[in-house]
Amino acid sequence: MRIAVDAVGGDHGSAVVVAGAIDGARRFGVELLLAGPEAEVRQALSSCNTSGLDVIVADAPQIIGMEEQPAQAVRRKPRSAIAVALDAVKDGRATALVSAGHSGAVMAGALQKLGRIHGIDRPAIAGYLPSMKGKTLVLDLGAVTDPRPHHLVQFAQMGTIYIERAFGVARPTVGLLSNGVEPSKGNQLVQETFPLLAAAPGIDFHGNVEGNDITRGVVDVVVTDGFTGNVALKTAEGAAALINETMRRRLTSSIVRKALAGLLYPAFREVRKDLDYAEQGGAPLLGIDGVVIISHGRSNERAIASAVGVAKQSAEGDVPGTIARLMAMLEPSTESVAAG
Amino acid sequence: MRIAVDAVGGDHGSAVVVAGAIDGARRFGVELLLAGPEAEVRQALSSCNTSGLDVIVADAPQIIGMEEQPAQAVRRKPRSAIAVALDAVKDGRATALVSAGHSGAVMAGALQKLGRIHGIDRPAIAGYLPSMKGKTLVLDLGAVTDPRPHHLVQFAQMGTIYIERAFGVARPTVGLLSNGVEPSKGNQLVQETFPLLAAAPGIDFHGNVEGNDITRGVVDVVVTDGFTGNVALKTAEGAAALINETMRRRLTSSIVRKALAGLLYPAFREVRKDLDYAEQGGAPLLGIDGVVIISHGRSNERAIASAVGVAKQSAEGDVPGTIARLMAMLEPSTESVAAG
Repeated sequence: MRIAVDAVGGDHGSAVVVAGAIDGARRFGVELLLAGPEAEVRQALSSCNTSGLDVIVADAPQIIGMEEQPAQAVRRKPRSAIAVALDAVKDGRATALVSAGHSGAVMAGALQKLGRIHGIDRPAIAGYLPSMKGKTLVLDLGAVTDPRPHHLVQFAQMGTIYIERAFGVARPTVGLLSNGVEPSKGNQLVQETFPLLAAAPGIDFHGNVEGNDITRGVVDVVVTDGFTGNVALKTAEGAAALINETMRRRLTSSIVRKALAGLLYPAFREVRKDLDYAEQGGAPLLGIDGVVIISHGRSNERAIASAVGVAKQSAEGDVPGTIARLMAMLEPSTESVAAG
Repeated sequence: MRIAVDAVGGDHGSAVVVAGAIDGARRFGVELLLAGPEAEVRQALSSCNTSGLDVIVADAPQIIGMEEQPAQAVRRKPRSAIAVALDAVKDGRATALVSAGHSGAVMAGALQKLGRIHGIDRPAIAGYLPSMKGKTLVLDLGAVTDPRPHHLVQFAQMGTIYIERAFGVARPTVGLLSNGVEPSKGNQLVQETFPLLAAAPGIDFHGNVEGNDITRGVVDVVVTDGFTGNVALKTAEGAAALINETMRRRLTSSIVRKALAGLLYPAFREVRKDLDYAEQGGAPLLGIDGVVIISHGRSNERAIASAVGVAKQSAEGDVPGTIARLMAMLEPSTESVAAG
């Protein structure tokens, strides 16, 4: 299986992405297609140990800037890394895409080149947050800011299939993010979605969950609109950053504290690893007819390597095909009910 | 100045609330009116040092359960602590209310007994989150789940007045919570609100802010709908709880680590204090024609004491009157523009 990687996407530049991709290829036993300006990618590769690996470089000299309008950018720059890598997935030279680049451009490009799964109205970005019980999948994280209730039902179905097929979670439970656990709580969208989720096939609906239930690990999948999901994810990141900074300040406020904290460094490193988003892997764009994994722009080597693993597991579990089969199964049954 | 306190509100019972209120009365130099079942309140008072304090008890034998429909409960139970305390504020026997009870019932009761400020369509709950620069006011935290754009403008104006008048913040800046900083980002509500905030009188609008900007302290006031605000607040609390639990586990995983962590206990206590919501005080219900401070149900003594201080500062700064004056100033000018 060959994974296409957008070698120039991400805040840390191609050296980090290429090194992470090579690491991922070795860890997960996959081949790579690295898309980016050829000289730059080969330069990054020259610092890596690629012995025994099957790596091809696809020249993609055009660069998409963060300020560009996504859909236009992908159309106007067919030789950008995102476009070249997606073409490789489309024509079968690669099985999946991993990109830490402009997430809007990845979404727009995936829609243009791979298309939506039949029956899915809006693809969603699904990402893991760490929890007391391991991790919780949250979707959508920003693809659809104003979904309709039936979009959230599809998010629940896609999230369920994703963690069943890619991570082997048996009978995952789904919660609807709200401002209270009672069925009467929520904004209008949530109140309209609740009965639809309660009746939806293909999911095990637990009911409403609150913001703190995400990290408590009350359910396996938390469904929300892309606006709220994005705000919640970033607020959690912000809380973690504040705690981290406050700890750092208080633990270095004297020589003695600094020394004691230094002795506890292994424990702090373990905490960081337990909670590191890099260990949680990339975020799949679910609903696209193909495997597309979006990595955080801030991804380090480990995060990219992990995203390569997520791409492999998603492809092996045939996540897009399974979503397509559920949608196909639901569609005729809806029609026959209507006809009957 | 006498502060009315709902002596039976809160998860920890009347002993904690009464002790916190007494502590607050002493710290901030105010008188108290404690509303609750008289025997229970006097029992709680008997464990406190009340020498030199002016404390009266208002008997309120009826209890509002957490499962009761708020507006009905306050109407049907005129001798509940919330109703009795609000009556005291209404007829001038007390200047402000502090309650850690059923927040829905506090809101419903405040609307029934004190009413909205003329010109304010929807009262909002405003609360502080800790930030790198001290603290950030966020509103709404759950009163209005589906506001209209002009409600968010009023939230911005009320939040600005609150921290100017109660906390002496000079020229506070306002951010609109969104899924990206660009003006084009946001759900439909945010996109429609952005130009209104940019043109609104009485505020210094900074633009869109993201979830992590709350704890970064990019602005003084973050405005959002009550659904998103509630989810963001609880998600931040959940992230903090997860980090706390992970730290505890890793720092106690061996005898040596436990001993070292024990020596660092003062530092950890400082961190906890830096980030403790109890230090941030209660959350005012802004837009009500009176000072009403909602405390977290989980409030400990320190949180209740702090809320008494917030009540005093809000009353001294005449937050409701200042909001009323801004609304009165805006209304005729809007009409004259319409007439012109």
